[in-house]
Amino acid sequence: MLVKNKTILVLGGNGFIGGNLVNRLMQDDNTSVIVFGSRIGTKESVTYITGDFNNEEDLEQVFVGYPIDIVIHLISTTFPADPDGLNMIFDIDSNLVSTIRLLNLMKKYRVMNLVFSSSGGTVYGVDEYFSYFHSEKDFNYPISSHGVIKLTIEKYIYLYSYHFGIKFLILRISNPFGENHISNSHGLINVILKNILDGNEITIWGDGSIVRDYIYIKDCVEIIYQLIKKNISNEIINIGTGKGHSINDVLGEIRKCTGDFKINFQPSRKFDVPKIILDITKLNSLLDVKPVPFQEGIRNTYDWIFKNNCLL
Amino acid sequence: MLVKNKTILVLGGNGFIGGNLVNRLMQDDNTSVIVFGSRIGTKESVTYITGDFNNEEDLEQVFVGYPIDIVIHLISTTFPADPDGLNMIFDIDSNLVSTIRLLNLMKKYRVMNLVFSSSGGTVYGVDEYFSYFHSEKDFNYPISSHGVIKLTIEKYIYLYSYHFGIKFLILRISNPFGENHISNSHGLINVILKNILDGNEITIWGDGSIVRDYIYIKDCVEIIYQLIKKNISNEIINIGTGKGHSINDVLGEIRKCTGDFKINFQPSRKFDVPKIILDITKLNSLLDVKPVPFQEGIRNTYDWIFKNNCLL
Repeated sequence: MLVKNKTILVLGGNGFIGGNLVNRLMQDDNTSVIVFGSRIGTKESVTYITGDFNNEEDLEQVFVGYPIDIVIHLISTTFPADPDGLNMIFDIDSNLVSTIRLLNLMKKYRVMNLVFSSSGGTVYGVDEYFSYFHSEKDFNYPISSHGVIKLTIEKYIYLYSYHFGIKFLILRISNPFGENHISNSHGLINVILKNILDGNEITIWGDGSIVRDYIYIKDCVEIIYQLIKKNISNEIINIGTGKGHSINDVLGEIRKCTGDFKINFQPSRKFDVPKIILDITKLNSLLDVKPVPFQEGIRNTYDWIFKNNCLL
Repeated sequence: MLVKNKTILVLGGNGFIGGNLVNRLMQDDNTSVIVFGSRIGTKESVTYITGDFNNEEDLEQVFVGYPIDIVIHLISTTFPADPDGLNMIFDIDSNLVSTIRLLNLMKKYRVMNLVFSSSGGTVYGVDEYFSYFHSEKDFNYPISSHGVIKLTIEKYIYLYSYHFGIKFLILRISNPFGENHISNSHGLINVILKNILDGNEITIWGDGSIVRDYIYIKDCVEIIYQLIKKNISNEIINIGTGKGHSINDVLGEIRKCTGDFKINFQPSRKFDVPKIILDITKLNSLLDVKPVPFQEGIRNTYDWIFKNNCLL
């Protein structure tokens, strides 16, 4: 897809991955970045357009107004949360139907390149053997609506590629952490660090044995940037580190930064996959990835939240 | 799931597969069959309830009124048709959202057994190698919205099974033909036979090289009946013959019954998978299937349409 001299539309460019990715994209001269989302951002030389992703007219005005070359779709209205009926239907309406509308607009305005952030943590799910190390070719058994809908969107993107020639890059991203994200609810490492800085008790669902593949956000967006720059397309790619850390491991690493803190263990949530690590053989065959060490990423995140927490 | 002394709700029990399956179920004493659909049927000792599958209240009244043990879900509002945007959103609303409502009702009323007719012809789709002989473990690349939605429903059923213990039997049925179905649009063999009897020209999309795995309806419903009776659950099972016939083959077999007829070849439709044959190794490991010979099935279908065409 290349990057230079291109107009790139980032849907969700004010979010965690989006904000960091826009920073990386803006390091390239001659790249125009348009961010579409629910609020205005503050970066110089980025064009911000506010609108509702679920409103087709809001989205269409962007395609009418700008000669877009690449769409990077990072919007998700749901998290791997409650497998409740109502939530599923909201998930379908807000994520699936809106993404089909986006695909139809891309077809209509002949925008032929799409990067989509899928979910490495939820699309593989739990099979009968409790496999936990997954390559892109593995079968999918999601146990959250979030995971089912991410997978369904992947399937519709493939269908649009087959029929209309839209080139895609589907990124099954593991669990990112790092700068430019302050939250009380999403992203374990960032949530813990914020709560420690706020003097709150840390809530952990389960006994701390849940294993995830945590990726430092700067590594994550560098990988996305390089994949686009190298013109990789029509691929589904796991983006993670290939290494797993239990929550208890993570708590230990964080303690090295922050000293001790109080933990409140709560009953586990059944929609959490017990263990998931991404097989990144494919990613490594495409790029030479040199990740920031885990402890260094956590320390950078801590420093950033320490500096910025009071501002929000 | 067993069958005897059970109350079985058949959604779409007036349709092609449904009508034939209800006939087979009624051969068992002490089995109560309830059919829910848009119209009243005529079979004695079947309870017919009319209602709209997309209307939650219509569906809930069935669960309130009857002690259902097994739900057999055969309703589909779409066919492997136009990959058009509007059609996709209709597909999502009418098939996916309504099936999630069904799953929620099953959870609410503690109905713990679900048989779902998925689509052997569309869920595998077209991969980069144009593979065409598919087992249940193969990856899915649907090229029609119908196929994507069938697959998504499979994933939600798995999710409900994982969280709420609902037992499922997902049937990836190939292309059925046979008695109790008269149509001008759906089911190649039945459509051709009706048009011959009506003296119409036969329309074929493409050059007749498209290959499908055709299954005679009486074999199909016998297999479904036996799988339920043997209490097979939490399985995805291909239901076909494991053999492929091109449309030209089919036309030749039909000519043996009917003599010559005129064919109008039209341009191929891109949402048709070029070739698909189901690997039925799993089915054969579960049941001793003795299919009716292809020519005999076609002749039975011809005889039935000949007798019944004028009645409709």
